[in-house]
Amino acid sequence: MGHQAKGTEVRIAQENDLVMLVSPDRRRHLVRLRAGAEWHTHRGRIRHDELIGRPFGSTVHTHSGYPYLLLEPSTQDLILQLKRTTQIVYPKDAAYIVLRLNLFSGRQVVEAGTGSGGLTLAMARAVMPEGHVYSYEVRPEMQELARRNLEPLGLLPYITFRVRDIAEGFDERDVDACFLDLRTPWEYLAQAYEVLKPGGFFGSLVPTANQVIELLAGLEGHGGFAEIEVEELSLRPYKPVPDRLRPADRMVAHTAYLIFARKVALGDEAATWRPAIRKPYLSRLARQEAMEEAEDSNTESEASS
Amino acid sequence: MGHQAKGTEVRIAQENDLVMLVSPDRRRHLVRLRAGAEWHTHRGRIRHDELIGRPFGSTVHTHSGYPYLLLEPSTQDLILQLKRTTQIVYPKDAAYIVLRLNLFSGRQVVEAGTGSGGLTLAMARAVMPEGHVYSYEVRPEMQELARRNLEPLGLLPYITFRVRDIAEGFDERDVDACFLDLRTPWEYLAQAYEVLKPGGFFGSLVPTANQVIELLAGLEGHGGFAEIEVEELSLRPYKPVPDRLRPADRMVAHTAYLIFARKVALGDEAATWRPAIRKPYLSRLARQEAMEEAEDSNTESEASS
Amino acid sequence: MGHQAKGTEVRIAQENDLVMLVSPDRRRHLVRLRAGAEWHTHRGRIRHDELIGRPFGSTVHTHSGYPYLLLEPSTQDLILQLKRTTQIVYPKDAAYIVLRLNLFSGRQVVEAGTGSGGLTLAMARAVMPEGHVYSYEVRPEMQELARRNLEPLGLLPYITFRVRDIAEGFDERDVDACFLDLRTPWEYLAQAYEVLKPGGFFGSLVPTANQVIELLAGLEGHGGFAEIEVEELSLRPYKPVPDRLRPADRMVAHTAYLIFARKVALGDEAATWRPAIRKPYLSRLARQEAMEEAEDSNTESEASS
Amino acid sequence: MGHQAKGTEVRIAQENDLVMLVSPDRRRHLVRLRAGAEWHTHRGRIRHDELIGRPFGSTVHTHSGYPYLLLEPSTQDLILQLKRTTQIVYPKDAAYIVLRLNLFSGRQVVEAGTGSGGLTLAMARAVMPEGHVYSYEVRPEMQELARRNLEPLGLLPYITFRVRDIAEGFDERDVDACFLDLRTPWEYLAQAYEVLKPGGFFGSLVPTANQVIELLAGLEGHGGFAEIEVEELSLRPYKPVPDRLRPADRMVAHTAYLIFARKVALGDEAATWRPAIRKPYLSRLARQEAMEEAEDSNTESEASS
Repeated sequence: MGHQAKGTEVRIAQENDLVMLVSPDRRRHLVRLRAGAEWHTHRGRIRHDELIGRPFGSTVHTHSGYPYLLLEPSTQDLILQLKRTTQIVYPKDAAYIVLRLNLFSGRQVVEAGTGSGGLTLAMARAVMPEGHVYSYEVRPEMQELARRNLEPLGLLPYITFRVRDIAEGFDERDVDACFLDLRTPWEYLAQAYEVLKPGGFFGSLVPTANQVIELLAGLEGHGGFAEIEVEELSLRPYKPVPDRLRPADRMVAHTAYLIFARKVALGDEAATWRPAIRKPYLSRLARQEAMEEAEDSNTESEASS
Repeated sequence: MGHQAKGTEVRIAQENDLVMLVSPDRRRHLVRLRAGAEWHTHRGRIRHDELIGRPFGSTVHTHSGYPYLLLEPSTQDLILQLKRTTQIVYPKDAAYIVLRLNLFSGRQVVEAGTGSGGLTLAMARAVMPEGHVYSYEVRPEMQELARRNLEPLGLLPYITFRVRDIAEGFDERDVDACFLDLRTPWEYLAQAYEVLKPGGFFGSLVPTANQVIELLAGLEGHGGFAEIEVEELSLRPYKPVPDRLRPADRMVAHTAYLIFARKVALGDEAATWRPAIRKPYLSRLARQEAMEEAEDSNTESEASS
Repeated sequence: MGHQAKGTEVRIAQENDLVMLVSPDRRRHLVRLRAGAEWHTHRGRIRHDELIGRPFGSTVHTHSGYPYLLLEPSTQDLILQLKRTTQIVYPKDAAYIVLRLNLFSGRQVVEAGTGSGGLTLAMARAVMPEGHVYSYEVRPEMQELARRNLEPLGLLPYITFRVRDIAEGFDERDVDACFLDLRTPWEYLAQAYEVLKPGGFFGSLVPTANQVIELLAGLEGHGGFAEIEVEELSLRPYKPVPDRLRPADRMVAHTAYLIFARKVALGDEAATWRPAIRKPYLSRLARQEAMEEAEDSNTESEASS
Repeated sequence: MGHQAKGTEVRIAQENDLVMLVSPDRRRHLVRLRAGAEWHTHRGRIRHDELIGRPFGSTVHTHSGYPYLLLEPSTQDLILQLKRTTQIVYPKDAAYIVLRLNLFSGRQVVEAGTGSGGLTLAMARAVMPEGHVYSYEVRPEMQELARRNLEPLGLLPYITFRVRDIAEGFDERDVDACFLDLRTPWEYLAQAYEVLKPGGFFGSLVPTANQVIELLAGLEGHGGFAEIEVEELSLRPYKPVPDRLRPADRMVAHTAYLIFARKVALGDEAATWRPAIRKPYLSRLARQEAMEEAEDSNTESEASS
């Protein structure tokens, strides 16, 4: 009764799996399972053999009795647990970038720089198995860190790493999307333009308003980008208590500004259209409200005069 | 010089393509190209033959001279342009749900209900070509609308539609993820639990705080869900003007609350751990600040006493 | 039984009162009551004599039966109903500015420009009856509009209007606070410094990030300002329905960036302290969480290595 | 040259003044100046005699050379530095409550409970010298703490403290405004109604969505409240660095939900009007955009069919 779906191979923890152990206070630990090995924490130790063969979603205890929940790590968990020497791209931003760059299986995307590989991870999972990520980084040791981060996840077949100062340009041509996660993205717009297919998706991420301003000026000045948008995503966590539902006390106030654009023919008139905010989707109700509101405002100004 | 990447088939608009025409004031129109056909707007008409063979990222004009930019539509554009009779899942939420449910090529996911198919679209693009979406809906005419929305996008091979009241349960077993987009998701937790693999990913989306409260109570009461989280994503658009950078005047204030959980063994102790907020990733700097702050607070309270 | 408090004069609408009529769809209208007069709307008319002598908080009907709730207008209502030709300072921002400039009865404050008088109104109500607002404006017709807006509210005794280009300086000295609501506030920092008392409160409000950047550079460069802070206030309205509580669909995304500083002795070392974010108040609980978090992060990084 | 304004008495720190010392890392300390006394910190000590007679806005050093900036504390500083055993009302919320309750010199306001006195402080400064705050609290030791907090600020003439379970009702009648800062405000609506003048301003503040729901149900059920609104204020701090302007890393995610209403005649039809969101002020531009948007939506749905 019930079709056995494909995902079943991850029902039970197996030797060589990268699993996650979660403590009651929500510390998360990634562990690669090896027969005979032991995992140590200051709350005690767990033999890997106790984990191998155990179904996910069950709690194990250290020899001193402290509990850990055994789970398959998600893309989000993996990004947050990457070893890093740089600021990572947050999962909420990575997910949205994947959407805005229109990435799915079969797409080709170029990114610079690689950083610790967090966005590379999200992009590789989005375009695999038929697409590819070309990831550029000028610091060899940084890219080596990213490679070591992503190798255990089986993602290397979908990624080509290149150590390169992208001032020299990208090797690819006609890719679907190009993303710049650099301190001065406006200096590399010619290279981004050159690597993109006609109509291709451009994106970038910068932490400061000054950088947004420089990048917008660069995109406008280049003449080959249209549909320029700047956005910011906020994630607000709640305390998940049914009889006292409320937002958490504190939250991340800012990760980065996101900038998106589309490549157009150089000098195309669309590159000179005045910047506009994409009309948000309006439900039938909201649309009606907007209309009433507009009418009201007119009426009011007459009525009050 | 430069490898020709795979995406090249979408460089130039071809007969049968679903293309997007964008006006200078950012209205977007989807058009399926047919030799000999004409596209009409109150600003004039364009012959499809003028579009076929034209590179993306260039502007065309109606016979009366009004310009439209020719682009390949993105997943975001497609979701926002769906014909719908219900509230859609916004792209920002769809992207984050895909991340939180850990969807990528090869994963199996069940959703209920189908609605207008916006989330189905995002999920299908995430799990294709090796995974699958099973989409349930109790209203046949609604699911028919979704099917008509997604058919032209070539996504039907990755989706199984079922007309069903999910009170009767899902057909699948051991799927990786289950998402409930229903008015009363708390009534279907037994069915969601049954369809998920051990450790599987549960998600839901509701517009009101009252529903969050009911769903949290249901998840707690069930005894087979852990790692319960409630989150809310806000997207703030900016006016992309380099010498007057500022947020837009108005924004969408709320789309939905997002609730996530993991399936655990029924009665597992992890289901009783007190709700906790996932520790956000802290940069080395922020971590140090948090520590200093904690110290300061202690010092201050002593100093001021 | 119960002391009769002072506010009783506003229990009942009286001739000459400025009252507010609110329709079921929340349009608000200010009406000055005059015996014998009539108020007209496209939903019918109401004779002022029906309103005079009526207690506030009761509904009256037009001759054609449309209802209006009779209320005393609040400071917020008055600001939002001002006749204006410029962007107003929103009530949420005006309230916070009053707090941050430390305004209360007896304080002296200088503002430029007057604009339509919205912030002037809030400041005058805050410092009256013993304090004073000096309001400068370069455009005579604008200040005349503000005067006409505030005269009916009885606030003129607490306000001195001056038509002046403040490049020429302010007339006052040693005032408690100075607020610049101008397009280029950084050009008038010398004048603001000169008018303030030692340690006085400086504030400004600008809509764009570019202006914030210029103003911060100006404040740093001047050498007589410390405790510089930049903040932004968002107001999120909810649909007040008990069984479907949720935020409104849309909200104002941005009104202005607020910048605050304190005057210090010219060249004082405090003007060179590196910018710092004011430590937010932490509840005992949050403080403990911050400390645990900081500890966790340390532990985790060790555990995962 | 230049009128000497009234605020001059706070130019120079004087014996008996409550002054604030700010360190380079933004710790703030309140000190009452006494000739001959010494202020100690783990960074050294400062003799009060060095502070007495010194102009505000200048830096002093401990005997070991650590600098502190001498400032007059603001209302915000005072609220944040209150000794407290309870959650305080944040300054941003206190400022907005003062505005929404329409408080200014001469107004009468009742609040319950007193808590640590933070909101009492803001209200007293708003209504003084001609108005009055009646502050109720059921726990005598709590009110005593508030009194000790506010006495040194000279605010006691404007406040009447009452130790009382407000289930027994308030002593006053016909006050302008009533604010409930209690765990279960919905249990005291009859008392709030009784104390308010016709059309009077009601407000409350609660941390959880569950409480908002209960309070909304209570207000609707009572039949004597109209114009019910629920709002939430967020304050986002920025790093005030001119060449790297960006929001701070973390912020307070939630302080409280704010609920406001107006007293109407019991059974007045306005109490049954369907809840509506106050129309936000729209600039002329935004109004035009809303109208265009509404038109667009209509046009689009036709065009795409």
